[in-house]
Amino acid sequence: MPREITAYSNPLVKRVVRLRDKRHRREEGLFLAEGLRILTEAREAGRLPAYVFFAADTAGHPLVRILIDAVESAGGEAIETTRDILHKLSGKDNPQAVVGVFEALATPLDAIDRSSAGIWIVAQSLRDPGNLGTILRTGDAVGAGGLILLDDSVDPFSVEAVRASMGALFTQKLAQAGWEEFVPWLRAGPGQLVGTSLRATHDYQQPRYQAPTFILVGNEAQGLPADYEAECDLLVKMPMLGKADSLNAAVATAVMAYEVLNQRRNAGA
Amino acid sequence: MPREITAYSNPLVKRVVRLRDKRHRREEGLFLAEGLRILTEAREAGRLPAYVFFAADTAGHPLVRILIDAVESAGGEAIETTRDILHKLSGKDNPQAVVGVFEALATPLDAIDRSSAGIWIVAQSLRDPGNLGTILRTGDAVGAGGLILLDDSVDPFSVEAVRASMGALFTQKLAQAGWEEFVPWLRAGPGQLVGTSLRATHDYQQPRYQAPTFILVGNEAQGLPADYEAECDLLVKMPMLGKADSLNAAVATAVMAYEVLNQRRNAGA
Repeated sequence: MPREITAYSNPLVKRVVRLRDKRHRREEGLFLAEGLRILTEAREAGRLPAYVFFAADTAGHPLVRILIDAVESAGGEAIETTRDILHKLSGKDNPQAVVGVFEALATPLDAIDRSSAGIWIVAQSLRDPGNLGTILRTGDAVGAGGLILLDDSVDPFSVEAVRASMGALFTQKLAQAGWEEFVPWLRAGPGQLVGTSLRATHDYQQPRYQAPTFILVGNEAQGLPADYEAECDLLVKMPMLGKADSLNAAVATAVMAYEVLNQRRNAGA
Repeated sequence: MPREITAYSNPLVKRVVRLRDKRHRREEGLFLAEGLRILTEAREAGRLPAYVFFAADTAGHPLVRILIDAVESAGGEAIETTRDILHKLSGKDNPQAVVGVFEALATPLDAIDRSSAGIWIVAQSLRDPGNLGTILRTGDAVGAGGLILLDDSVDPFSVEAVRASMGALFTQKLAQAGWEEFVPWLRAGPGQLVGTSLRATHDYQQPRYQAPTFILVGNEAQGLPADYEAECDLLVKMPMLGKADSLNAAVATAVMAYEVLNQRRNAGA
């Protein structure tokens, strides 16, 4: 049976509101995801929130019902609440009717089975949470195994990153590692490291990519450091016909990832 | 000679700060662009600000010098100011050293020379300013002629859209029109209207696209309305291998635009 919370002063409400801060997410190992669509994707991917808050007037929705039952069966807690409190939790004027509190799970590099997918995305010092979420969403679309975040990338569990991922945070593996940890792991098994770089001499459609392909994208403003580029098996670039010399990081990742996918589709692989 | 403004209460400062609001941008027909990189791209594209604010300690930078001279020669005004006022103008903690106030120019549909480019991007009811700017940036990269914003799309002159465009706002044509105005204009000349849609039956790599190709992307949440899809000469979709059924709007636009560009490059056109 869901319990009811209607007071702002409720300690759980206060605790959940604090999860909008990175520091509290770190301390608690929890994060927020909003919206029935994203929570349903999480459930279908086998991920259930520890707590699910829902607006009383949505309790009759079949997918909300299924979600509540699943959370309670798994030992989590379902909490019926007001639109005002949902607004407070989500920080949005027009809050979603359902908000979940999930365990922030990252996969250690050693636990990643690289042969489970032909594409992996590796991002270095990514700064923008929207880009991070969009890259996860693209990874899901191209059948990537997951996203490996290198160095001091933005928190993948921020509300904005989770929202931009449109649920892909729950379907893609997510690892966080330093470069000095990533390279030995990469080289201990099969895998082609492909960097996109302004300094590349290969057009990105020229090479035949080998699976598993690790697509390496650099920081939005600086691109990849020179020694990271030197480690790449291939450096490639997209044609740039205009005045600008680079693409948005999430766009470059997607254009690259679809090229790898298209090569495999067209080879009948 | 630049004049100096150091007081928050200065009427021009107040006027420029108000340009962060859409309503004031509309009323004044002006918008803000920040950063030496973007302002230099604007200058190189032949667009100069009516006013340029710069931090006193950057006046010696050669590109700032060139910008100031160009603005003054063109009858605009250069204003030396403090970091505090630049912070107030840009609304950012870490303000750029140069802020420009530009005329908000949109091109009427009738003034667009469609044969000047092989790709045009058409976006319907786009909601996210970051997506809008990113699409302009991608348009620049693929050599598109410009962006046609349909219906009630987000303001292309918001600080966030301008920033995400990385200067492409100044190199791409920008038109705003209703659907009922766009369709007769489109059909009065050559051009293939290609929509991306979940309901499409063609894979996006299957057709040979005809120039000029008008790539039509729909609203982030709803996609294209059914009657807009019905008007398209082709409806295509990208492969989606994961759980999600769609890509981010700016990502879908880029994947599509690079496919059109790649077909032409590979045909030696």
